[in-house]
Formats: sequence, C-alpha cells, structure tokens
Amino acid sequence: MEETNFEYLHELVSQGNFNNLKNELVEMNEVDIAEFLGELDRDVMIRIFRILPKDLSADVFAYLESEDQGDIIAGITDKEIQKLVDDLFLDDVVDMVEEVPASLVTKILKNASPDTRKLINTYLNYPEDSAGSIMTNEMVELHDRCTVRQAIDKIRKTGIDKETIYTCYCIDNSRHLKGTIDLSDLVFNDETALLSDIMDDDKQLIYVKTTDDQEHVAELVKHYDLLAVPVVDNENRLVGIITIDDILDIIEEETEEDFEKMAALLPSEDEYLKTPVLVLVKNRIGWLLVLMISATLTGSIIQSFEDMLAVITGLTAAIPIITGTGGNAGNQSSTLAIRALALGEIELKDWFKVLFKEIRVAVICGLILGLANFGRMLVLGNPGGMEVYLTVSAAMFFAVIMAKMIGCMLPLLAKLVKIDPAVIAGPVISTLVDSLSLLVYFALAKAFLI
Amino acid sequence: MEETNFEYLHELVSQGNFNNLKNELVEMNEVDIAEFLGELDRDVMIRIFRILPKDLSADVFAYLESEDQGDIIAGITDKEIQKLVDDLFLDDVVDMVEEVPASLVTKILKNASPDTRKLINTYLNYPEDSAGSIMTNEMVELHDRCTVRQAIDKIRKTGIDKETIYTCYCIDNSRHLKGTIDLSDLVFNDETALLSDIMDDDKQLIYVKTTDDQEHVAELVKHYDLLAVPVVDNENRLVGIITIDDILDIIEEETEEDFEKMAALLPSEDEYLKTPVLVLVKNRIGWLLVLMISATLTGSIIQSFEDMLAVITGLTAAIPIITGTGGNAGNQSSTLAIRALALGEIELKDWFKVLFKEIRVAVICGLILGLANFGRMLVLGNPGGMEVYLTVSAAMFFAVIMAKMIGCMLPLLAKLVKIDPAVIAGPVISTLVDSLSLLVYFALAKAFLI
Repeated sequence: MEETNFEYLHELVSQGNFNNLKNELVEMNEVDIAEFLGELDRDVMIRIFRILPKDLSADVFAYLESEDQGDIIAGITDKEIQKLVDDLFLDDVVDMVEEVPASLVTKILKNASPDTRKLINTYLNYPEDSAGSIMTNEMVELHDRCTVRQAIDKIRKTGIDKETIYTCYCIDNSRHLKGTIDLSDLVFNDETALLSDIMDDDKQLIYVKTTDDQEHVAELVKHYDLLAVPVVDNENRLVGIITIDDILDIIEEETEEDFEKMAALLPSEDEYLKTPVLVLVKNRIGWLLVLMISATLTGSIIQSFEDMLAVITGLTAAIPIITGTGGNAGNQSSTLAIRALALGEIELKDWFKVLFKEIRVAVICGLILGLANFGRMLVLGNPGGMEVYLTVSAAMFFAVIMAKMIGCMLPLLAKLVKIDPAVIAGPVISTLVDSLSLLVYFALAKAFLI
Repeated sequence: MEETNFEYLHELVSQGNFNNLKNELVEMNEVDIAEFLGELDRDVMIRIFRILPKDLSADVFAYLESEDQGDIIAGITDKEIQKLVDDLFLDDVVDMVEEVPASLVTKILKNASPDTRKLINTYLNYPEDSAGSIMTNEMVELHDRCTVRQAIDKIRKTGIDKETIYTCYCIDNSRHLKGTIDLSDLVFNDETALLSDIMDDDKQLIYVKTTDDQEHVAELVKHYDLLAVPVVDNENRLVGIITIDDILDIIEEETEEDFEKMAALLPSEDEYLKTPVLVLVKNRIGWLLVLMISATLTGSIIQSFEDMLAVITGLTAAIPIITGTGGNAGNQSSTLAIRALALGEIELKDWFKVLFKEIRVAVICGLILGLANFGRMLVLGNPGGMEVYLTVSAAMFFAVIMAKMIGCMLPLLAKLVKIDPAVIAGPVISTLVDSLSLLVYFALAKAFLI
C-alpha cells in the first residue's frame, strides 16, 4: 500500500474547489478523511466537514482528535449536532463528552434525545477505566425463543445501526444474557430453528460486568480471541458490548503506561509533541527529585569511606563500574518480572521459582562479569595491583547477584502490597542496588586491603 | 466472570472417568480446554486429546503450546495427523511446522495433502516476520461479476471452513483483488445485485504485500480498525488474509521486544518460567559485558582526577548522585522518544521540535533539581562547604540538560542509521551520560575549587 498523500486535496482546498474536493473525499476511507481534516485550519475544517454526506460525517467525526471535535461542535448548528449525536455510536459520544470543554457538553446534551441524554449520563457515572465506561449499547439483541428467520428479519431491520452484527446476543424476557450466536450460524442454519437450540450457551459464557476493570476486559478478549464481549449489570442483564477496536486502544494505553512508569515518568494522556512543556516537567520532576534525594544514601556511604578511598588508589575509579553493572543487571531482572506479571506468565505464588531461576542466572552472569572485569583491569594495567583487581571483581560478582535478586523480588513484593509493579522498575532498583553494592564493595576493600 | 477452575476436571482425570470428562470438555471454550490439557502429563494429555470430538480437537490444538503440539503429533497415528492438518487453519499449521522438531515436520508433511504440502512450503519460504509468513489462505473469495444470491450460496457451501466470513474479497478472472464486501452488506442487499456494483472499491483499497513487514501490517489494521486485511503478491493477485487475532499477537510480540531491548536484553521467544537458565544468561550477558567494558571510560575519567578527589573532601560522595540523576533524566527522554517513534507520533523530520521541547523541559527540571540538591546539601550539612555545594548543583544542572538532549536525540539518530531505536535506551544512554557529566563536574570543580 502506498502512503496516504493529501497534497492534491490541499491543492483543491487552496483553489476553493470544494465540489471536486467532496468527490475525492467520499471515495476515501473515513480514517484518512479525519487525518486530512486534522491538518486543516479550524474554519476550513468545519466548512469541509459540513459538506460531507451525512452518513459519512459521523464516521469521520469519530476518528477526529477531541480538540477538532470540540471545534466542530462549537461551529455547527443545533440541528446538525442533533443529527450527528444521533448517527454516532454511543461510546464515541461518551468519549467526546469526556474530552470537550464543559460549555460544549451542555450544547451536546441539550441536542441529544432524552433517551440518549439519559444513557450518556449513566455511562459517565461508571468508574473511570471500568467496562461500563467504555461499552456501547449498539449491539444486536435477539430473544432466545425466536427463530432464525425472525432473527434475520430483525437484523435486516435494525442491524445497520449496530456497531457489530457479527455476534448477536440472546436474551430472555428479563434481558438476562442467555447465549450468543454468530451471524454466520444464522446464515448457515435452517430458518425455522429456534435460537435457544442453536445458540452458544456454554456453561462458560464469556461476559464482563459493568464494574470490571478495562484491563481485565482486554485480557479476556485477547485470551479468547473475541471480536466483542458482552457487558452485564449486577443482575446479569445485558447492558452493552465492548468491541475489539476499543480493546486494541486499551491494550495500547496500558502498555504505554507501563513504559512510562518503568522510566520513572507519570503516565501522560497526550501525544508527545502535543504535550505542553510544563506538563512534561510535571510528569518527570517528581520521580527525579525522589530518586535524587534517595541517592543521598549512596553519597553518604561513599562519604563515610572517603578516607579509605583517598588512601588506596584505584578504588574510587571502580565505583561507577560496579554500580553501573549492578544497575543494568537488576534492570534486566525487574523488566522481565514486571512484564511476566503484566502478561500473567507468573503469579505471586511463583516467587520461589522466579527467585531460584534468577539466582542461578545471576551466579553465572556474575562469574563471567567478575572474570571479565579482572581481565579488563589486568589488560589496562589499572592502578592498585592484584588485591584491588580481586576486590573489585568480587564486589561486582556480589553486586550482580544482589541486583538480580532485588530486581526480580521487588515487583512481586509491590504486587503483594497492591502497588503497581511497573513503578518498582529500573530507577528505583538502581538506587537500592547502588547502596548495597557499595556497602559490599567497601566491606571487601576494608577486609582485604587495609 | 469467574476464574476458570479445573479442579473438578483434574479429579475426573485421576478417577479415570473419561466419559464424564469428555462431556464436561465439549461444553467448554477451546481456549480453556487447551489450557487444561497443558496442565496434564504428556500421556494423559494425548489420551484426552484423542477422545475429543474431531471438529473440536483442531480448534483446541491451535491453542496448545508448541511443545504440547509436538507431543501430540508424535503420539497420534498418521491418519489422525492427516485429519488434524486438514481441519486446522493453514496459518496454524505453518506456525506449528516452524516450532516443532525436524523429525515431526517430516511426519506432518508426509501426511498433508499434496496441495497443503505445497502451500506450507511456500509459506515457509516467505521471510520471517513478513506478511506472507503469517497469512492464511482460508478467506472467502467471490468473483466480482456474480450476484448477491450466488455469493451467499457460495458462502453457505464453503464458508464454514474459512477463518473469517465477515469480510469477503472480490477478485476478477486473473485473481486480482478488486474490492471487499462485508457479509452484512450481502445480507442487507437485493439478491440480484452484482457484487461489482455494491462492493467497496475505494481508490484506497487497503491491502498488504506478501513481503511487507508484520509490524507494518499491524499498524495498518490498528489505524483503520480492520478485522482482517487482504494480502496480495507482486502481481496484485489475492493470496491470503491476516486476521485481527494474529495482529493482536504481533502487537504483543513487538511490544515485548521493545521492553526487552530497552532493558539491555536480547528478545526472548518463550515465557519467562519456560526459558532455561542458560538461555536467560545468553540473552543478558552480552549487553552486560559491553556496558561494563564501556564503563571503563567513566572509571578512567575518575582515575585521572583521583588526586583532586582525594584532596577536596565532599567531591567523591556526590558522584553517584550526579550520574544517577543524569541517568534517570536521560532515561525518561529516551523512553518517550523511542515510544513516540514506535507509535508514529514523531518522525525523523521532527528532530528539531523534539530537541527544542526537551531542552526547555531540561532547563526547568535541571534548575529545580540543582536548587533541591543545594538545599539537600545545606540541610544535611555536607562536608566541603558552599563552593562544593555550588559546584555539585551546577554540575547536576548541566548533567540533566546533557542527559535529556542525548536521551531524545540518540533514538532518532539510531533510526536515521537504521538501528532499532529501542536498543539505544536507558543503559546505553546512562553509560554515555555518566562520562559526560563527570567531565563537566570535574571541570567545574577544577575551575572553582582549586
């Protein structure tokens, strides 16, 4: 596929040739149209948005950045808003309402139908990041006592407005979720068959509750390769669905948060280039300060051995090599532990297996690194002589072992006390490892060299 | 949803009650059955796999770990293999062939039909991680000159074996991809309509080539919210599709690789607990050695200033605080730059915007950290007096600025010279930042304190 190129479209805009522009746009994918609109100035964007065919404009709107969505809401008539809110999927309306300024929210709610307004308010009341807050109500519900023929007729009549018709949800008179049926099963089955006879009503019917965390929902969809998952309320009544495209966004969001936490950053919501400098500072300075202050511990350990360091030449130069190697070794272990926890590959009860594995890895890595370091000092003819070489190499060996033990155990410990393991990553562990390896190093030096 | 609990099933196994066990299993989701089988001993697993209904066993097989798949292939008859390979989706067969030992590959190929064997070999020849290597040929192809009625008849006849029937692919006589049509459009349209009139034949028809990288495929599917994407060969002929469930796996795989590279680890393919100790050592020791040896630079900088450090009290103790803070600050910037590159939020041409932003952030962070450090030393009554406090604080200010500039620029530079930016993460940048900040620190100390 070639890269999307909007040059010709921009040319049409600057020529004011909106007729040709419209003809070009209607042939395009809604994602690309939204991207193109995002490149335009506010007024031109609104003008072009308004000339889009009505059935296309809602699709395009859903893919616009929330800032652009706000501009459009502010720039179109009440009647247009009414039509737009009507055409959008409910989850996209809720997303927008959560993002745009309060004055625009009023404008949107005023122009929504009473039913939609009520639903929006219900959705806004679900806890942030819960299944309820991300679901949509545009699913196909079928009564479990109807026939395939009746079901297909219903889908023909109402399905066109639904977010997915590929999985339909079977409910009883009290709206309890009884089973699911794929569109393909309807197409392949006899028209007189009853849904209750052909639907999927496994004991293990897969669904989530409105209050479930979105991360749990994503896990489930990934685990079972689903295209959509039904959402039920506390009385097990079907209230919505969550589709795979929203799941993809959640997975990406949660992964980014892990990357950010592991780099001692507060999670940010916006794209990098769109985040103001002061927000970036705010997201970074907290952890930097905490880690800088806690490095005081390392500093005071060095300080208390300053006399020894001043006397024995060659000791000071090895400090960053020992702490650096320990930090890197610990970082490797903590990253693996944090990710294995996040992906469900390990659990708290596996702590001993993990620790035992890491110790074996650490002993081998520590030996290799210690020997390599001895060779390095020998080759470079470092000052201090054999005793110093041996002391530094031994300190490195122990630093690697401690670093890997701490690196794999702290994330598990964090999980145990309900702290996000990703927060206990590299920088935090380095700070701890630095102090401990220096203590071991100086103890060895004191024992062997003085 | 409750957690899956296999206790009762294990009880049935230990009672040897395979009849009841089978009745329980057929009611379960294939993903859960595979998970349960994975918990069993080899012989019991094979025995239970063989009592599963034939239409279910292929579904379950696709979700087994490759080790278990190999055990089953080794333990069942040629005839059973033949049926299994026939029932599996082609991409799952190819995945298996890529993982199991060579002797089993021969056994599988021997029992595959000549057509399947030829296809497997073709797929195996596509470059690793290319679209061709992950696609499947189980898609619904419809001739663009047929009617809706003919299309639905064809789907009814052949669709049941296809990986997805929700998007069908329209081709001409030479198998060129002409457009796509959703099953829902077939259901909603007049039976006599021609596909060529109702199919989606945007100018921007979305497809990939067999040689495209899987990461590009994942981007595309995410960007356009697709459920499947068609794959064409060099002559633009339809040869396969890639479905969203495989895309999810690719996204996860690529993300994990980024996590691992950023922690100075070689990417591993297996789950943590299943990876042997020596493989873990191999994945870690390389970078640890490289970084340890390169830390020699930092060591020799300290060494060449050892006389000064021995004389001026308080200088040595501040070394880990300055380098640690620089490392953390650089780590934040490099993580953001690497992820923004991976997500396409920034490109090479944005380098100046990124640099300018980071410098502004760095100046503010550096000022705050420098001041905080001055306060810290004052409060703790560090040795060395005001001049030392000022020197350390100034060195910290410059270290943060250098760290953030290097942290944001090196990933872009890596991208420019076609190195994976994730490799230029925390550990590599720390090593560089350590040396530079020490040089600045000692230069300042020399200027102000001697």
